[in-house]
Amino acid sequence: MAQIERVGVSLEKELLGAFDRMISAQGYQSRSEAIRDLIRQRLSSARLRNEKAEAVAAVVLVYDHHATALMERLTELQHSHLLQTISSLHVHLDRHDCLEVIVLRGRVGEINRMGEKLVSIKGVKLGRVNLLATAGL
Amino acid sequence: MAQIERVGVSLEKELLGAFDRMISAQGYQSRSEAIRDLIRQRLSSARLRNEKAEAVAAVVLVYDHHATALMERLTELQHSHLLQTISSLHVHLDRHDCLEVIVLRGRVGEINRMGEKLVSIKGVKLGRVNLLATAGL
Amino acid sequence: MAQIERVGVSLEKELLGAFDRMISAQGYQSRSEAIRDLIRQRLSSARLRNEKAEAVAAVVLVYDHHATALMERLTELQHSHLLQTISSLHVHLDRHDCLEVIVLRGRVGEINRMGEKLVSIKGVKLGRVNLLATAGL
Amino acid sequence: MAQIERVGVSLEKELLGAFDRMISAQGYQSRSEAIRDLIRQRLSSARLRNEKAEAVAAVVLVYDHHATALMERLTELQHSHLLQTISSLHVHLDRHDCLEVIVLRGRVGEINRMGEKLVSIKGVKLGRVNLLATAGL
Repeated sequence: MAQIERVGVSLEKELLGAFDRMISAQGYQSRSEAIRDLIRQRLSSARLRNEKAEAVAAVVLVYDHHATALMERLTELQHSHLLQTISSLHVHLDRHDCLEVIVLRGRVGEINRMGEKLVSIKGVKLGRVNLLATAGL
Repeated sequence: MAQIERVGVSLEKELLGAFDRMISAQGYQSRSEAIRDLIRQRLSSARLRNEKAEAVAAVVLVYDHHATALMERLTELQHSHLLQTISSLHVHLDRHDCLEVIVLRGRVGEINRMGEKLVSIKGVKLGRVNLLATAGL
Repeated sequence: MAQIERVGVSLEKELLGAFDRMISAQGYQSRSEAIRDLIRQRLSSARLRNEKAEAVAAVVLVYDHHATALMERLTELQHSHLLQTISSLHVHLDRHDCLEVIVLRGRVGEINRMGEKLVSIKGVKLGRVNLLATAGL
Repeated sequence: MAQIERVGVSLEKELLGAFDRMISAQGYQSRSEAIRDLIRQRLSSARLRNEKAEAVAAVVLVYDHHATALMERLTELQHSHLLQTISSLHVHLDRHDCLEVIVLRGRVGEINRMGEKLVSIKGVKLGRVNLLATAGL
């Protein structure tokens, strides 16, 4: 089990009231939980500014089923030494389009470059790279 | 097959040169493909400003394995009339943490509210909601 | 003077250590100050999702000096009943380009629509709308 | 005068129709102008990923009038060799808060680090760093 510490935070009554109303509407059951989440998000995004930081990424791609080069590139990706593909998910959106989510590990810079390469493939219409730095959170 | 139109675009020589260098580095094989992708991204993000627009979302969550409420909430989600869960993917990141990607359809506002509820569950550490408006792209 | 409250927050020792190191590198002199800032940013961005929320905006525009329509549109803006221009700043960037920062108040939806209109003016090259919800922070 | 080139772009009829409707609603008077703006935004954001790229920034800060350290830090900023302050704008928002917009030039990494330092000053409540890479646009 992780060791828990308790710290004191002072803040304006009005600010605290507004925060409590917001987190209660979101469904939080404790203020500590909500503050921990803010801290984790902030740490994760600070780490992701470093091109060499280790990250987990969910790459989301929308493409039409003629995008045959995508399959080849994804296969290459799985044999790459720089990135480690963990898992992927394929969904048929409609008669034309598919959505693919690829979960991979690697360094921030490598993942972003791979993301750009995937989006540039003929037939890939939209792409989004979601990076998360999860270590120590 | 989609009907293709050809349009003319005028732009400064220097701007065109810089664009051509960038897209070539990214791996694009034609300028048309790169411009189509810019247009699709712009249309998708413009549509997502509308709370009532139909969208596809990849919700990415990192949580520890004690987050038992998450499973219940995800089950509720699958029985919800507002959102339609299409598919999900579960990955063990390390001894503590899991990553879950949930692909769902629904309206922008509903998806964002559900995303906030999921992140607020005890044990969920990080969450990201990736919305894509795919219709007509 | 604002009334100050002191609340307790429990969090994992490792998470706290990583947060303390980050905020110290940023220059924070107290943990409370850093947590207050996280809370304010979160509240501000939550409020900005509401199209009707009151906000302050810094609209940043880069344009070439041939963009004469911009001046007319900015004058219109100052006579608009929907938006209240507070102040503006004009900087010559180089021989071609100027940067203009316009600070205004209004509702989120109105400001975003005005921002789009400003960027679409011939001669305006880049634009960014920075919304801040400052009430009660 | 910049030298203008005319290039052909092929795209699906449905995509073109949706794009034309969107840009007309935004106020664009020509499709070329709208596509040039997309290209400039894309180039600007691609360049800003490079920590060493030259950029112009509008730093927006909200602070209360007790934030005396801010004034000192801003004075230091103006004497810094790394960043060149071009201009600044000060607005009284209400009885407590002020908004300051500082336009400066420098390298992406330096500007971001300065932005973090400014936000961490006691009394500064919210901050946003808006980077623009304007060269060759």
